[in-house]
Formats: sequence, C-alpha cells, structure tokens
Amino acid sequence: MPLLYKKKIRVGAVPGSIESDKSDQPTRIELIDYDAGDITEKPLSSIEESFSCRDTGSVSWINIIGNDADVIRKIDEHFGIHPLVLEDVVNLGQRPKIEEYEGYLFLVLKMIYFDKASDDIVAEQIGLVIGENYVISFQEREGDVFETVRERIRESRGRIRKMKADYLAYALLDAIVDHYFVVLERMGERIDALESELLDKADNNISLKIYRLKTQVIFLRKQIWPLREVLANFHRMESALIDPAIGVFLRDVYDHSIQVNDTLEAFRDAVSGLHDIYLSTISNRMNEVMKVLTIFSALFIPLTFIAGIYGMNFEYMPELKWRYSYFVAVGVMVSVGLGMIIFFKRKGWM
Amino acid sequence: MPLLYKKKIRVGAVPGSIESDKSDQPTRIELIDYDAGDITEKPLSSIEESFSCRDTGSVSWINIIGNDADVIRKIDEHFGIHPLVLEDVVNLGQRPKIEEYEGYLFLVLKMIYFDKASDDIVAEQIGLVIGENYVISFQEREGDVFETVRERIRESRGRIRKMKADYLAYALLDAIVDHYFVVLERMGERIDALESELLDKADNNISLKIYRLKTQVIFLRKQIWPLREVLANFHRMESALIDPAIGVFLRDVYDHSIQVNDTLEAFRDAVSGLHDIYLSTISNRMNEVMKVLTIFSALFIPLTFIAGIYGMNFEYMPELKWRYSYFVAVGVMVSVGLGMIIFFKRKGWM
Amino acid sequence: MPLLYKKKIRVGAVPGSIESDKSDQPTRIELIDYDAGDITEKPLSSIEESFSCRDTGSVSWINIIGNDADVIRKIDEHFGIHPLVLEDVVNLGQRPKIEEYEGYLFLVLKMIYFDKASDDIVAEQIGLVIGENYVISFQEREGDVFETVRERIRESRGRIRKMKADYLAYALLDAIVDHYFVVLERMGERIDALESELLDKADNNISLKIYRLKTQVIFLRKQIWPLREVLANFHRMESALIDPAIGVFLRDVYDHSIQVNDTLEAFRDAVSGLHDIYLSTISNRMNEVMKVLTIFSALFIPLTFIAGIYGMNFEYMPELKWRYSYFVAVGVMVSVGLGMIIFFKRKGWM
Amino acid sequence: MPLLYKKKIRVGAVPGSIESDKSDQPTRIELIDYDAGDITEKPLSSIEESFSCRDTGSVSWINIIGNDADVIRKIDEHFGIHPLVLEDVVNLGQRPKIEEYEGYLFLVLKMIYFDKASDDIVAEQIGLVIGENYVISFQEREGDVFETVRERIRESRGRIRKMKADYLAYALLDAIVDHYFVVLERMGERIDALESELLDKADNNISLKIYRLKTQVIFLRKQIWPLREVLANFHRMESALIDPAIGVFLRDVYDHSIQVNDTLEAFRDAVSGLHDIYLSTISNRMNEVMKVLTIFSALFIPLTFIAGIYGMNFEYMPELKWRYSYFVAVGVMVSVGLGMIIFFKRKGWM
Amino acid sequence: MPLLYKKKIRVGAVPGSIESDKSDQPTRIELIDYDAGDITEKPLSSIEESFSCRDTGSVSWINIIGNDADVIRKIDEHFGIHPLVLEDVVNLGQRPKIEEYEGYLFLVLKMIYFDKASDDIVAEQIGLVIGENYVISFQEREGDVFETVRERIRESRGRIRKMKADYLAYALLDAIVDHYFVVLERMGERIDALESELLDKADNNISLKIYRLKTQVIFLRKQIWPLREVLANFHRMESALIDPAIGVFLRDVYDHSIQVNDTLEAFRDAVSGLHDIYLSTISNRMNEVMKVLTIFSALFIPLTFIAGIYGMNFEYMPELKWRYSYFVAVGVMVSVGLGMIIFFKRKGWM
Repeated sequence: MPLLYKKKIRVGAVPGSIESDKSDQPTRIELIDYDAGDITEKPLSSIEESFSCRDTGSVSWINIIGNDADVIRKIDEHFGIHPLVLEDVVNLGQRPKIEEYEGYLFLVLKMIYFDKASDDIVAEQIGLVIGENYVISFQEREGDVFETVRERIRESRGRIRKMKADYLAYALLDAIVDHYFVVLERMGERIDALESELLDKADNNISLKIYRLKTQVIFLRKQIWPLREVLANFHRMESALIDPAIGVFLRDVYDHSIQVNDTLEAFRDAVSGLHDIYLSTISNRMNEVMKVLTIFSALFIPLTFIAGIYGMNFEYMPELKWRYSYFVAVGVMVSVGLGMIIFFKRKGWM
Repeated sequence: MPLLYKKKIRVGAVPGSIESDKSDQPTRIELIDYDAGDITEKPLSSIEESFSCRDTGSVSWINIIGNDADVIRKIDEHFGIHPLVLEDVVNLGQRPKIEEYEGYLFLVLKMIYFDKASDDIVAEQIGLVIGENYVISFQEREGDVFETVRERIRESRGRIRKMKADYLAYALLDAIVDHYFVVLERMGERIDALESELLDKADNNISLKIYRLKTQVIFLRKQIWPLREVLANFHRMESALIDPAIGVFLRDVYDHSIQVNDTLEAFRDAVSGLHDIYLSTISNRMNEVMKVLTIFSALFIPLTFIAGIYGMNFEYMPELKWRYSYFVAVGVMVSVGLGMIIFFKRKGWM
Repeated sequence: MPLLYKKKIRVGAVPGSIESDKSDQPTRIELIDYDAGDITEKPLSSIEESFSCRDTGSVSWINIIGNDADVIRKIDEHFGIHPLVLEDVVNLGQRPKIEEYEGYLFLVLKMIYFDKASDDIVAEQIGLVIGENYVISFQEREGDVFETVRERIRESRGRIRKMKADYLAYALLDAIVDHYFVVLERMGERIDALESELLDKADNNISLKIYRLKTQVIFLRKQIWPLREVLANFHRMESALIDPAIGVFLRDVYDHSIQVNDTLEAFRDAVSGLHDIYLSTISNRMNEVMKVLTIFSALFIPLTFIAGIYGMNFEYMPELKWRYSYFVAVGVMVSVGLGMIIFFKRKGWM
Repeated sequence: MPLLYKKKIRVGAVPGSIESDKSDQPTRIELIDYDAGDITEKPLSSIEESFSCRDTGSVSWINIIGNDADVIRKIDEHFGIHPLVLEDVVNLGQRPKIEEYEGYLFLVLKMIYFDKASDDIVAEQIGLVIGENYVISFQEREGDVFETVRERIRESRGRIRKMKADYLAYALLDAIVDHYFVVLERMGERIDALESELLDKADNNISLKIYRLKTQVIFLRKQIWPLREVLANFHRMESALIDPAIGVFLRDVYDHSIQVNDTLEAFRDAVSGLHDIYLSTISNRMNEVMKVLTIFSALFIPLTFIAGIYGMNFEYMPELKWRYSYFVAVGVMVSVGLGMIIFFKRKGWM
Repeated sequence: MPLLYKKKIRVGAVPGSIESDKSDQPTRIELIDYDAGDITEKPLSSIEESFSCRDTGSVSWINIIGNDADVIRKIDEHFGIHPLVLEDVVNLGQRPKIEEYEGYLFLVLKMIYFDKASDDIVAEQIGLVIGENYVISFQEREGDVFETVRERIRESRGRIRKMKADYLAYALLDAIVDHYFVVLERMGERIDALESELLDKADNNISLKIYRLKTQVIFLRKQIWPLREVLANFHRMESALIDPAIGVFLRDVYDHSIQVNDTLEAFRDAVSGLHDIYLSTISNRMNEVMKVLTIFSALFIPLTFIAGIYGMNFEYMPELKWRYSYFVAVGVMVSVGLGMIIFFKRKGWM
C-alpha cells in the first residue's frame, strides 16, 4: 500500500547520522558547470571532482543519482551542510519542505510518475540544496524529468545561461511541477475510462478499481498538498540567495501547484461520485432481477394453483365431467395470465 | 471530462515562452478609444495600429479574440509586459488570479456559459491587462458578454465615459460576474427539473444525470471559487492604477462573487440531497416489488399445497370419497386466501 | 426552489442604476419622529414630506414598504446616498452585509417568516440606512415585525425614547433577529413531527419531506450565516455614528445570531440523522417482507414437493397401496412443517 | 427535542428587561463569606442581607437558585450590573460566553447532567458574576456540583481560603468542567452498550437508539463547544479582577475543556461508526434471509417439477408402466437435490 | 473502549492535589548523570538520592516509572515544580501539551504501542520536566523506547554527551515520535490485510474489524494530533532553557509529527474506503444470490405449470389421448427451458 509512509525506522538512531536506504544501486554523479559563455558537462567518478567548481564564478549543478552514504558524507564536509539535511536526503519518504540554513537553502520535493511495470503511481524524492553559485540535486533513481532543463542549458535556450543558481533551482522546480500535469492527465483519463466501464457493467471488480483510484488520489494529495505551502514559503523567504527578480517565476510555479491541488480536489469529488453511481447501479440491477423474479412468480404461481385444483382426485368434482371444462379452465388461465401482464405493464415493470 | 485541468503540457519548456494553444482561428483585434467627448471604435487588422492610442489622454480598450502568438509577442514588446503574463494568456486553463506588475495589473478570469451544442458548461478564459489609460482584454473566442459594456460606452450611459481605465476594467469584471447568474439560474432550473423527474421515475439514467450535475457544480466551483480571493485582493490592493473611488464598485462585484459561491454551495447540497432521494426511491421501489412477490407467493403457495395434497394418488384417502370434500377443500382454500389477504392488509402491504 | 439566488439579471446594466424588481404594489411611506418628550407618527403620501425632519434634533424613522424606483431616487438625491446602495435596496436577494459610507451606514438583512399560503420559508430583504439622526428602513412588503418597536416608541417603554438613531437601528436589528427564533421553533417542531411520522410509516413521501426540510435548513443557513459576520463588523466598526455605549447591545444581538447559527447547525445534523433512520427503516421493512416470503416459501415448497411425489402416476409405487400411507405422508408433512417453524423461531424470524 | 434552542421568545420586548422564565419554584439564596481565618455560611431570606458583606475584606459567594425577577432586579441596583447581563441570567438557553464589564466579569456556562427521570442529558445554565471581592452564581435549580467547593471552603482544604474571589470563580468553573467527565463517561458506557447490543440483534429500535445518541452528542457539542473559546478568552483577558497567578489554573481548566471537546469529537465518530455497522448488519441479515429462501426454492422447485412431470395424465407415457421408474425417479430427485446442496456448499451459502 | 478519556474523576478535588491513579506497581527511579567525560548510571531506591546531582555541572536524567504520590510530592518540594504540573503527571489521560514555567518546561506526550496481550493500541502518558541541567521523565510503566537514548549516552554516540539537557529532551522526544512509525507501519499492514480478507469473504465480522480499525485510527488521531501544535510551540518558544542551536533538531521532530498526522489522515480515508468496498461487496453478493433464485424460479415455475396442466383430471382433455402428446409436452418444456436459459445468458446473469 502506497499510503504508508515508508520511513526507514531507526528508533533511537543518532539524529543526523547517515545510513542510506538503498545501496544496491551504484551512485552516479553528473556535473554541469555553465555561465553565459561556457559550459562543461561531465559525469564524475567521485564527488571530490566537483569541489573545485565551487569557487569559480560559474553556476555548478551537481546531480547525484542514488544515495551513497559515503558520497553524501563528503558533500557534508566540503559544502558545510547540516547533518540533518543529509539525513533527510538519505531517508526517503520525507514530506515536501523548505528549510533555510546559513549559506544555503534545502528543499525536499516529490517527483511523481506512473511506474510502467506496476502501473501504479510512484513518488520519488528529490532533494535540492541551493547555494550561492551551485545547486546540488539528489534523485532516488535515474529519471528524465531534468533532461529538458539540461537541454535548455546546453542549447542556451531562454534566459537560463544568463541567470544564477537561483534561476536554475526554479527551472528544476518548474520541471518537477510541470510533470505533475502529465500524471494528472493520466489519472483524468482513468476516471473517464472507469466512468464508461461503470455504465457498461458493474461487477465487484469496479468497486475495487474505484477504491484503488481513490487511494491513488489520497496518495497524490499527501505527496503534493504540502508543496503549496513550501512554494509559498519559498516565495516569501527573504534570502540573500534568491534574487527578488526570481519572485515572479516562483509565483508562477506556486500558481501551478495550486492548480494541481485544485485538480486533485476535483478528482476526489469525481471518484466519490463514481462510487455513488456504482452503488445505485447495483441497486438498479437488483431491482431488475427482482422484477423478473416477481413477474415469473406472480404470473405462473396462480396458474399452477388453478391447474392444481383440477389435479385433485376427489370423486365428486362436477366440473371434471363437463365437456368444455378443460377449455374453460385453459381460458381462465389465459385470462389470468393476460391480467397479470396488464398489471405489470401498468406498473411499468415490463 | 471538464474536471481535468487542460494545461498544454510542455514539460521543460522555457518559462515565459509563448506558444499558443489554438491557431486554427484567425485572431481578431478590436479597439475602442473614448473620453467624455469622443469615441473611436474600429476593428484592427494588425496590433500595431493600437500602439498610437496609448499616448493620448483617452481610454483605450483593446480587445483581442483568439490567441495568436505573433500578436501577443508584439504587445509584449510595445507595452512592456512580462513574458510570464503573456504565457498565462496563451495557456488556457489558468486559475483566476490577480497579479501586480510595475505599471499594470494582470487578471485572469473565467467567463462561464452553456455551450449550445454540447449542452455542457464551458469556461472560457479571459485575461485583462489594466494599464494607466488602457485595458487589453484577451478572449479565447467570440462572445457577447462584453457587448453591453460596449453599448454603454457608445451610448454614453451611466458614468463610464467620464471615468478612467480602472472603471472600464470594473465594468468588464461586472459584466463577467453578472453573467454567472445566468448560468446559475439555468443550473437551478435543471436541479428543479431533475427533482420532478426523480419523483416520476427513478431509472439508472437519473443516477447519471445527478452525477453530471454534481460534476458541473464541482467544475463551476473550481472555476469560480478563487474569484472571491482575486476580487478581495483587487479591492485591497493599493495600486496607483486604481482610483480609491472605484473601491465601492469593486466591493459590489466582490459581494456578487460571494453570492455566486454561496449559491454553488447550496446547489452542491441540493444535488447531494437529490442523490439521497434517488437512493431511497430505488429502495422503496424494491420494497414495492418485493411486496407484490411476497403477496403472490404467500397467497398461492399454501393453496397450491392444499391442492397438491388431494392430488396424491394414495389408494386409501378417505376424504376423496366423501361427497362434499371438494367443496369443503375449495372453501378451505378461499378461507386461507382471505386470511392471507387480511394479514397483508393489516401489515399495510396491500 | 428557494435555493436559487433570485437576482434580477440585468447583465451589463449600468451599475448603480435603479430599476425596481416589483412595481405592482404601491409604495407606502411611514414616518415616526420622536425625542424624549415628543412623538409624531404619520403615513406620508410622498417622500418629500420626510425631508424636513432631517434637520430637527429628534430621531426620524422613515419606513418604506415596497420599492418604487422614483421614491428611492428622491431619497438618493436628498440624503446623498450612493447609487450602489440604492441598487442593493431595489435588487432583492442581496447577501446580508454592512457597509460604511461617509455620513451613514448601510445594512442588508433578511427577515425570515413562514408564508401561510405556501407553508414555505420566505426571506424578505430589509435594508437599513443609519444616519446621524435618522434611520431609513426598506421593506419588501408589509410585515409586523417592527410593530413591537413602534409600540415601544409610542409608549416610551425602556430607554428607546431617550436614545439616538443608533439605538433605534439596534432595536430594529434585535426585532429581526428575535423573530428568527420563532421560525427556528417552528422548524424544530417540524423535525419532531417528522421523527414521529417516520417511526409510524416510512413511505417515499417522507423521503421528500426530509429533502424539503433539508433544503429549508440550507436556505436558512444561506440567509442567516453571513449575519454573524455582519454583526461582528458592526460591533467592531468605529463609526462616529455609533455611540460606544451601544456596543454592549450590539454584542447581545451578535450573541443571538450565533445562537441561531448554532441551532441551524444542530438542525442540519438532526435532519441528516432523520435520513439515516429513514434508510434503515426501509431496509428493515424490506427485511421483514423478505422474512415473510422466505417463511412461506420455505415452509410450503418442501411440503408441496412431498405431495407432488405421491401425485405421480407410476404404476408401480408400493406406498400408494399401503393402508396408512396417506396418514403417514400427512404426518411427515406436519413434522417437516413444525421443523421449519422451529428453525425459523430459532433464527428469530417468527 | 433538546436541540432546539429554548429561548423564551419575546419578540420586540424591551432589551434588558427582566422577565424570568420560571417562577413556580421559590428562589433560594445562600451566602458564604470567608477569609483565611473566618467563615460565615447562611441561607438568606432576602437578597438585601447579602449587600453588607460586599464592603468587608472577605470573599463573599452569593449563590442564587431559581430566577426570581425581583431578586435579580435588586442585585442589579445594588451591584450596578448591566440590565443585559441580568436578562441573560434570566433567559435560560444562553450560549456559554464571557463578557467584561467595568468592575465585574460575567460568565455563562452550562452544567451538564443526566436527568434521572427522563434518562436524558440536561443542560442547566449557570451564570457567574465575578466582582472584586464577591462572586454571584445563578443556578436554574438545586444541584450538588458546587457542594465540593463548599466543603473545601468549610474545611479550608487546599489554598482556597487564602485566595481571592478570582480563585473562587476558578474553583466553581473547575467543578463544572470536571463534572462533564462524569457525563462523558456515562455516554461512553452507552456507546459501548449499544455496540454490544448491535452485535446481538439489529432491530429498528437500535437505529433509533443510535439516532438518540447522535442527537445527544450534537446537543453536548452545542453546549460545550463554545466553552473552549470562553476559557481561552478568560485566560487571555487582562482584567484587574484576575490575579496573573490564577492564569496557570485557568490554563488547566482550559486544557480540560479541550479534552472534553476532543472526546465529544471521538464520540461523534464512534456513533457514526455504529451506524455503519448497523447498516451492514441489516444488509448481512437480508443476505442470510435471501440465502435461505434461495436454497429452499432452488432445491425443491426443480424436484417438484420432476414430480409434476410424472403427475401428468397422458395415456401414452412409457415410463409410467416400467417397474422401477418410481425408484429411478426418486433416485434422480435425490441426485438433483444432492447436486444442489453441493452447489450451495461450494458457493459457501450453506 | 479506548476512546473515552479515562480521567480519574475527582469532581471538586483540590486542584493541584496529587492522588496517583495506580499504586499497585512499585515506583522505580533511574538516574543517568553525564557530561562529555563522565557518566554515572544507577537505579535509585529513593528520590532523595537524585537531589544532589542537581547542583553539579553535568546533565542529570531522572526517569521515574510508575506514579507514586510520595515520590512526586518530594520532587515537587525539591525542584520547586508547580502542583498542577505534578497533578497532570499523576492523572493519566492528559492531552499532549507544553507549558512554560519559571525555571523549567513541562511536556506531556503519548507513547504509543501495540499491547501484545490485547492486540490493541495503548497510549502511555509520558511527562517531561526540562530544567537547566536536568530532565525528569515520568513513565506510566516500564517501556524500552528510551533504551536507545540510554545506549547513545553510554556509548557516547553522536553529539549527545557534548550537549546539554535541552538536547537530551530532544532525544527523548525524537525517540517517542520515531516509535510512532512502528505503530503506523503495523496499522498499515492491518489495513492491507483487511483489504485482502475483504476480497475473499465479506462476513459481518469484517464490518466489526473495519469499525475497530476506524476506532483505532480515531484514537491515534486524538492522541497524536495535538502533538503537532505542542512541537510547533516548543520550536517557537524563546525560553532561556533552550539553546537556539537546538531549533533545527526540534524542527526535525516537528516535521516527523506532521508526517505522522498526514499518514493518519490517509489511513482514515483508506479505512472509510474499505467500508465502501465492504458495502458494495455485500450488495454484489445479494445480487448474485438473487440471480440464482430468479434463474431457478423463472426456469422451473413455468415448466411446473405446464406439467400441472396435464396433471388435471378433466374427463375431456383431447391431448391426453394422443399418442405423442407426452413427447410433445416434454419437447415444449425443453424448449421453454432453453429459451429461459438463452434469455438469462443474454441478460448476463448466467
């Protein structure tokens, strides 16, 4: 169940200690170092290689994929980052948040995507450390959401190459939030598909599908809801690291995050509406089944009774001897039957 | 499904870049330039023609229908509007909002109407840029909601000709919000119609209609709810562009927007009440069907059993030989039947 | 449906223009002019007659019943009231509100009563303009809620004759809010009556009655809810028109308005509770019907089968020839029947 | 119905006028006058006797049971209390509140208890007027909730005798709020009892009991909810009458009031959970009834049909003549019956 | 029922008086006294032994298990703690809270765990008194949640030995909140298990299990919800006792408490979703039962009727004499039966 917060439980562990959740995957480090004129892009074999870039005037973007405790410890030492920050980076399942430290800002965000294998929604944690002329991004696993930002840097599209690290941070945030809309669109399609399916057949499977959708909406809300506040705080924050001119861009991302939340709210109502249709569909089918049963029973039970009467073996039953009794009896049966049919037609059951 | 936020997804696109959502429709530009004495009204073939008006003392209203990226880019350059504003204009599906920039205000609003073809509610995005002596309005498509404002300007009704651009902006806002009441009235009629229909017959179709209504109310809420805050901010904003005397008018529009929200709230409760009636109607019908079945079964099954007894072929069944057995048997059946009928009458089932 | 906000839709009309909603009823004007010593009470044939009173030191209460656009226009001119205020007076269906203008306050309130003809709740709009030494009250139609205030003035009961216009305004407010309790009491009785009815018989009619009650509670909430805020603002307002000593009285009306809202909240829960009982009552009745059906079917169908066996016409059926078969068969049937009855008794179905 | 706010409706009465709700009960007045050294406790035959105590340095607690308009009027005159305060004392059914007047504070609270006769929850109104060296408490009727405070004063337990009137007021508040827990415990037991009963049998009576419980919880909430804010205001109030050292005690009562509200919240959820169980219990019973019906019908109807076939009187029915047909027929019936039983066992219905 | 707030009801007891809830268990006192260099850890036989440590420069952690009124009274005297604080310690069932007193802070928290015996959630109250160089912790009973903190002190892991009492308090808080995740994980597993069980079989037992889960979630919410505010206040508090450098750690615990609350919120939605599935599962089963009944009835009742016709004993029934009537009759029956089967297949009931 994706609802459960999957914190690595280390009750009583030393706060600020760094034990990574996953070590099965090798950690990859990428560095992009750019200014208006130049750009250097290279994979790093060790984190130490990135340390030199820090002191140049250019913007350095260090992207770390996977969470190797050693790498993180070295960053800690070199960049002077608080151990609790790095604990948050390593312990996946943090709530989105922004924290201001001396000399850098720390953001936790959720990257949301549909996992192709399980067809379920997955929330990957993204950590961002924003310094004066560097941004360090931590990703759980390889993803292509930042690729568009990389391309904009490479091809020097828009203003990104002319701006500082704060704009790079904004561009990464924007890429993440923009990607939410892809997931929302897919969820919207699922709700639509379920609505169509619901009208075709209402088996118990649907009840489960509605539940799964509902759970996914709850899960998304839990991941995305706090973002609103995070971005509002980011926008409001009067940090020396953030150029006031960036404010208008942050407001834009903030607006997008509100749209995402609004849409999730609407999805929640829509899914609960689907459940209502589902319940009334079941009731209606029950009604239909009952009508068929009632029609057959009420039609033939009285007729069978009439037949039963003349199946009695009393010696003295005058009608039995009469010549046309049989035809009269059948006639009576037909009349009763027709009467019932008219009765049901009037009730609108047939 | 109208619930889904239909943002053109351009993950990683350069923020502030303008790619219009629709270009199949030619963009039309209208200019009305007026002061207390004079009025010029003309369609423009190109946006450049409007640029001259900016420097006169009169109020210029530039209305742009359709969103041509070229036109918008030129406005950008001439009026010095921030690219993110124009991105919002072009990307339909924004949330209503107000933003203050240096030298102008930017509003996003929703124009709501019933689409005649699909009979569904449609929300058209309206962008307003309010400058010192000009208002630029962006409409998705041709609509007649601003026609009344145009007529008031032409015929110099009320105070509009004597006032500045801020009053024009207010008049446009007021026209949009007033139009919401038309949609609300129509929705109210639908709820009434559904209530009547519900009491006549409760088929599964109704369940769907209730769902559709509910979805529409949710959709409207999503479109209109943020307006309240937008107008409150507008009212509170201490911008040099807004004359304090306009405050009382803005408060009036604000009151109207609250009324709209209140009514939507009441609609939501009413629709959920309809669903309750619907469910209990289904249950009651089920009850009625069950009663008919029960009455027929409980009436004839015992009688059929009596008939069955005397249909047995045992050689030694003394009653069979008695002269009046048949009549006695029929008498017993009639008594049992009457007894059942009395029983059901007492239960109130017949 | 009373839920719909019945704004006269005049999309694009000139704001502040006065076109009255109803003109079929002649407008009546009453004037009471009093101070501690003197009192003048007279109906006026034209609004101009009231203008002279304004300049005396006494308190003038001008009560206008019906909304004649001409009368209102004249008041506008003489008392210098903002056109938007008078538009609000004329356009029925405003939300309760308080607005502060220079030299006067404007309140919109709802007078609630049960209409004797339709037996439905009706909300009449009351507008109050409170000036330095005058109060103008606008009523939709003749009502007797202000009669008690009039009598207190006439008979000089309490402190009203010694106080200023602000106290008169308070007295009118208090009379309106006190009247809400009459309506609440009546609604409470209806809920009680419905509860009793529900336990007697649960037909579909009840479902509708519950829905109507629910709609009425929603309607009342919509009318009365904003009052809380209006009175809080009134209380907080530091207007030169309101003597601070009046504060304690306003707080008292405010407390009453909160009580009204609390009671409506409780009513809403009670009505939703009624719906729950109703649903479970239907289910229980269904259960009862099903039990009767099941008892009859399960009792007689096996018996009929036994009878059916010995109704078969096989030539070689040894039991048929035995002397006591018939009695044995009947005995078996009686035993089976008794067995079934015991079974059902044990299940608690009989 | 206890939900209805039972305000004595006196539409248009003079505000601040005192007409008591009940006069059938004689009003009793008790006086306890104490300081660290001395204590005088006596019933008073008239309120005038208490007036002298006011000017001594000791703390006077005047407890008035019943609401005699005359007594209250005299208090009004002597202690200089605002008529609206005394109107609130006399008009039962006030919302809990605190009001600050010059020279005294006024509190309205609810004393909650189970009425032994009706077994229903009753809310008695308690008014407290807290002056510099006196506390006047108004009770609707005789109750023993203050007895423990009296005993503490008499026996000089704790610090009460050393403290001022503000501590006495706190002690009375604390006694009232502590008593809520008695009522909550009793309600908790009822919910438990209902849960047990529900699992035993689910008749319609239970639905009503759940509704009554729900109504009681709503009623309690309505009575107790505002207390939270009252106590918060009391705590925050910077009145010269309240020694700052009392603050910590008030915070304690405040915490208790929050606990009460939390518990009521939890009760509400629990009661709604009971309703859910109840509904599903009904559905399950229906299911069980239906299964019995279906098993009997599906078992015997086909068998009866087989018997019916060989009950036909056709002259040429070869099987009838065969020697073992009867046994074969019975064998087939037994097989079909066993087949059905296996079928139902597989479905898990038997 | 764990919902009920189990306050020892002592209506009218002297506030601040200490009567312990449980005295059946002997009270154990443990002392850990440490600084960066030294550590003393010993059980104490009497509380007096701890008093000397107070005046050293080292940090003293006094852990008291069980609540002996005598011990607490002595602490009261020696450490100068307000009697109301100690009353809160002794009266179990307090709401989580933080209170600032002169010279110390007081926290009430809930330790949550699954009781192995009853398999129910239990909330144990933890009281923390945080002084300048000491922390006194009060536990209801022996628990191992603090063991990890003890070990960190003993083994001097992390920074704990170098820090002051405020960090110790943080470490205890962190241990408690971290333990919540263990309980949440277990609850998550239960919800998952119930979901699986639900899909297998939906008996009434499940309804009860869902109710129990719901009650547990409500209970947890009630225990944990206030923690959020407590930690926010702790973080915000500008107490001389709390080093500003601790702020970042407190913010971390605060974040965790929000995660816990978010997860509980999601659990609540998930449990309510389970109830929805459960209800629709019941309805679907009912539908299935009804279909079986209807199929059998509608199939065999008409056939039985046909058989009944030719079971009649009329003398003149021409078909009876015909040679192939029997085979024709059987043929008709087979056709009717097949017709019914096709009909039901088409309806999708078979």
